[in-house]
Amino acid sequence: MSRLVLKFGGTSVADLERIRNVAAHVKREVDAGHEVAVTVSAMSGRTNELVNWVHTMPGIAGKNAPFFDAREYDAVVASGEQVTAGLLAIALQSMEIDARSWLGWQLPIKTSSAHGSARIEEIDGGEIIERMGRGQVAVIAGFQGVGPDNRIATLGRGGSDTSAVAIAAAIKADRCDIYTDVDGVYTTDPRIVPSARRLSKVSFEEMLEMASLGAKVLQVRSVELAKVHGVPIFVRSSFDDPASIDSSPGATPPGTLICDEDEIVEQQVVTGIAYARDEAQISLRRVSDKPGVAAAVFGPLADANVNVDMIVQNVSEDGSVTDMTFTVPNSDLEKATSVLNKSRDEIGFEVLQSDPGMVKVSVIGVGMRSHAGVASTAFRSLFEHGVNIRAITTSEIKISILIDEAYAELAVRALHSVYGLDKE
Amino acid sequence: MSRLVLKFGGTSVADLERIRNVAAHVKREVDAGHEVAVTVSAMSGRTNELVNWVHTMPGIAGKNAPFFDAREYDAVVASGEQVTAGLLAIALQSMEIDARSWLGWQLPIKTSSAHGSARIEEIDGGEIIERMGRGQVAVIAGFQGVGPDNRIATLGRGGSDTSAVAIAAAIKADRCDIYTDVDGVYTTDPRIVPSARRLSKVSFEEMLEMASLGAKVLQVRSVELAKVHGVPIFVRSSFDDPASIDSSPGATPPGTLICDEDEIVEQQVVTGIAYARDEAQISLRRVSDKPGVAAAVFGPLADANVNVDMIVQNVSEDGSVTDMTFTVPNSDLEKATSVLNKSRDEIGFEVLQSDPGMVKVSVIGVGMRSHAGVASTAFRSLFEHGVNIRAITTSEIKISILIDEAYAELAVRALHSVYGLDKE
Repeated sequence: MSRLVLKFGGTSVADLERIRNVAAHVKREVDAGHEVAVTVSAMSGRTNELVNWVHTMPGIAGKNAPFFDAREYDAVVASGEQVTAGLLAIALQSMEIDARSWLGWQLPIKTSSAHGSARIEEIDGGEIIERMGRGQVAVIAGFQGVGPDNRIATLGRGGSDTSAVAIAAAIKADRCDIYTDVDGVYTTDPRIVPSARRLSKVSFEEMLEMASLGAKVLQVRSVELAKVHGVPIFVRSSFDDPASIDSSPGATPPGTLICDEDEIVEQQVVTGIAYARDEAQISLRRVSDKPGVAAAVFGPLADANVNVDMIVQNVSEDGSVTDMTFTVPNSDLEKATSVLNKSRDEIGFEVLQSDPGMVKVSVIGVGMRSHAGVASTAFRSLFEHGVNIRAITTSEIKISILIDEAYAELAVRALHSVYGLDKE
Repeated sequence: MSRLVLKFGGTSVADLERIRNVAAHVKREVDAGHEVAVTVSAMSGRTNELVNWVHTMPGIAGKNAPFFDAREYDAVVASGEQVTAGLLAIALQSMEIDARSWLGWQLPIKTSSAHGSARIEEIDGGEIIERMGRGQVAVIAGFQGVGPDNRIATLGRGGSDTSAVAIAAAIKADRCDIYTDVDGVYTTDPRIVPSARRLSKVSFEEMLEMASLGAKVLQVRSVELAKVHGVPIFVRSSFDDPASIDSSPGATPPGTLICDEDEIVEQQVVTGIAYARDEAQISLRRVSDKPGVAAAVFGPLADANVNVDMIVQNVSEDGSVTDMTFTVPNSDLEKATSVLNKSRDEIGFEVLQSDPGMVKVSVIGVGMRSHAGVASTAFRSLFEHGVNIRAITTSEIKISILIDEAYAELAVRALHSVYGLDKE
């Protein structure tokens, strides 16, 4: 017997038929003898509708900037998960399974006061554990908790993954199953590389890099949380036929397990190739190379909430001026250039160049730590395919390369192949 | 300055444009210097959609009877009011009015444990009053509270009226304004009698009779509550242009005030004519006239949740057998006859006759108490119009007459005219 948290996203609960299908997945795990808690998202499309209402509502004041109270946003938007939780509890009950819905304020799931993007601070799992012992399935509304002000607080988009992992940690679950519309984590995007393989295991560290680099399977925060609390995540598809899956101990249903590095016996050097589109490159030419110049550049950008990613600064030839290059999301480019031009005198650059059409391609693998030459393999492969490299940054387990958007698919395919990731 | 509760029903908050219109009504009262709390229903159609999902959900079990957990029903359905409350708070904020939404569990509005049809047991109005004093408008989700089990409990359909009056009582409001899609209470249904007049004042007692007899303006429970707590209700239209209404002290905007009898100076003998369709008549012929026979008839009907209305029993000629006539809703007729036939030996009747096509027409007015001949005027008028009377019941302030459905409009018009209710 294991204790499991199952999480179902919006497409998995899109309508009553899909919710019944989810109930069948839950029933299968209950029948296999597991203790089960479930976390659900809103029915797909519903959150967008509610968010859109909130954004459209303040039209009457004739203001330019849309304005709304994040606490009211939370009250409106969190209703979507509330509906799904109640409906799934009913579907389970109709299959003779003891189940009840839980809203964030009922457990409670206590959060920070940052409405709209709150952090979970504390979950009391005691009653859930006690009821699981009596065979009851907890159906918990994802994406929400209750703030210090006793008002509903949501966790930000994609927060249901985080809810699920936090609940798994609170009730000491053996595993957190994230059911989604894909059947696992792949070596790269199968739409670009048809020979991409599903990974049976990925380490938390690698998944963090993949998640933050654009592989949209899991929310970054949920992986961080799982790493901290040592909760294994199993990514799997809710679109598989519930009846065809073996949930008995020792069975290996299709999916990807995200777990500690130690548990991955056959470690690959490179695990996957990720990419992130819609990057913009900004270069400041002939910046005076004096102490504090980096703070002068990035301080105002941070104050303006511009998310700066890759930063490259070369050592200057004569110690007087240097070039500084970094990337920002395309959507922040206008704001970033405006902020920098305002600070021009303070920073002391001569020219600001920007280019919006960039893609960041990344090679990820914990095996890099112990293998030399991984980076040079990438550079050589891209050179042989005629891909010009704009900037490079590296970490212990990742090499990120900025290239022109036009070369994105070519580069991903070349790297996927050169590291031997293609299906046999 | 007055302290007001404003309640807006589903058609008044049907979409974002209508919610902005509601905000304009609220702003007008705030600008006139009043302290304001608002109660809202779900956007029109939304509650039906949610209820339908709950009823459809348990399909998978293949059971005949739809089954669902009333606690889950409440969690799902109460989400509708939650959305409206948040959106209205945002609309008000965008008009520079300090406002916040309140959900049932936040105030809290404590209810009984009867999920799906709970009763309000206690409301803590302290924080609302304190915040009103600082100029904040409370936007309270109607129709819901929190039960002793710390789960959302709804009050049953139409419960938002009850929420509004209960809140008005808790915060000692001077008046509870029920905004709806009609501009007040009329002497009878204007669709049947175009010359029907809007009443400027109606007593609680009269409104109770009208509400329970089929005038669908207000929920019966809300009028009972208003009577007990002495909260005047003002029924008015949310479709009037907010800008055209004078809310200053002493102004009399269009609508109907429901208040204590004492406050109605010019008392009419008859205030209105109500009618209720879809009544079925059941007659038990030659029932043995022994003690306990009424209990033998109505006990099993009550156990089967059949709502028995008019009951007529004649004194028997020789004290041995009697006829017993009563009405039930058409929708309960089959259940009622089946229950009675099962108890036939115990009750001891010879024949059961039933007739589904009945209408109950009622003449209502507190003035009846002090005026003789009101009933005979009705009977004479119906006789002159050729309307056959099936049964009669009376109370202190009401005469109800059961007639064939075909004569409904004729009877309502005749009675409306004979008591001088037609517009001049």
